Amino acid sequence: MRYRKVPDETVRRLPFYLRGLLLLLQQGRVGISSQELADLVGVRSWQVRKDFSYFGEFGTPGVGYGIESLTRQIKKILKLDVIQKAALVGAGNLGSAVLAYTGFKVYGFDIAAAFDIDPRKIGRKVNNILIEDVSKLNTLKHRKINLAILAVPADAAQQTVDALVRAGIKGILKFSPCYITVPRKVKVISIDIATDLARLPYYIRTR
Amino acid sequence: MRYRKVPDETVRRLPFYLRGLLLLLQQGRVGISSQELADLVGVRSWQVRKDFSYFGEFGTPGVGYGIESLTRQIKKILKLDVIQKAALVGAGNLGSAVLAYTGFKVYGFDIAAAFDIDPRKIGRKVNNILIEDVSKLNTLKHRKINLAILAVPADAAQQTVDALVRAGIKGILKFSPCYITVPRKVKVISIDIATDLARLPYYIRTR
Repeated sequence: MRYRKVPDETVRRLPFYLRGLLLLLQQGRVGISSQELADLVGVRSWQVRKDFSYFGEFGTPGVGYGIESLTRQIKKILKLDVIQKAALVGAGNLGSAVLAYTGFKVYGFDIAAAFDIDPRKIGRKVNNILIEDVSKLNTLKHRKINLAILAVPADAAQQTVDALVRAGIKGILKFSPCYITVPRKVKVISIDIATDLARLPYYIRTR
Repeated sequence: MRYRKVPDETVRRLPFYLRGLLLLLQQGRVGISSQELADLVGVRSWQVRKDFSYFGEFGTPGVGYGIESLTRQIKKILKLDVIQKAALVGAGNLGSAVLAYTGFKVYGFDIAAAFDIDPRKIGRKVNNILIEDVSKLNTLKHRKINLAILAVPADAAQQTVDALVRAGIKGILKFSPCYITVPRKVKVISIDIATDLARLPYYIRTR
């Protein structure tokens, strides 16, 4: 795979294509055009063709894409053709909301572990997931968990990330609004809900 | 403004440019090239120029962009040159995390109200914001609040949205993983953390 050559924005769109395709599969649809795919994601149809061109030849010019085959290929590119296990760290308000979130299953994620530092939370279950002591992060390696969702307060973020890296975590989805440093081999994706909110006023007409 | 002609993906990137520019401003930087802007956001430099081209002539070819002027222009396009008030609906785990989130101020947002249906929450304050009875949503109109952040359970989403629309809300940032229908004049932006998580495995090498 050509990791370096594919723009991050293309990779970012792949799950959105996938989500749309999975829905269409459920509805029994068979084929789809670039234009329909573009409408699903909010880009132009040339962008769809360009996005897929990084990974080979997917559709048939003038005909479109087979939904089942395209779904399978995108899953494979995203490594979502296997179950991906993730651990949550920080079972506060945000972390508890993450544990209760039902949207991960669509992509085959298994939130397989949860950790907190608060003795009142450790040993309890949220959505059937046991909250473990954060000192047990080192067990992640032999549990074959590669991904972590970071929902700890900003002032605990760096030390938690350091422990996750020592435990062999390769990818981190980070909510904490702060800067952290990781070794180059670890990928961090940040979620900033303010940046999503920030495009909303563009679309509205003030009264 | 040419609302229809600007791709959603371009609008989506504008806050990311803005966030990077605000940080550079703080650091005392004066100018920036398309390439640096591209690196901030994870696109190619031609995409930066194309994004800005929808709104007029911004930079100087071969020189780049003045950070202060570009910041001001993006704020204006996004209507973030004024304080935008938003209301939170649903003060559960997720909603409480939203109320505690410090990242909104960067863009000039004011989370000016919060609502819940639970009598045990109503009247309490979270991060200095009073939780009001959801039956008071109709007060949003005269409080000049145009935006809402929806963090209610999926089964309450549509009725809450209907109440928000009646209260004159023009834009909704939605966490609830469900489909809702709104009049065409109301813009809904959905946050799905699973779709963000879904691009993480792409970047990691399994052990």
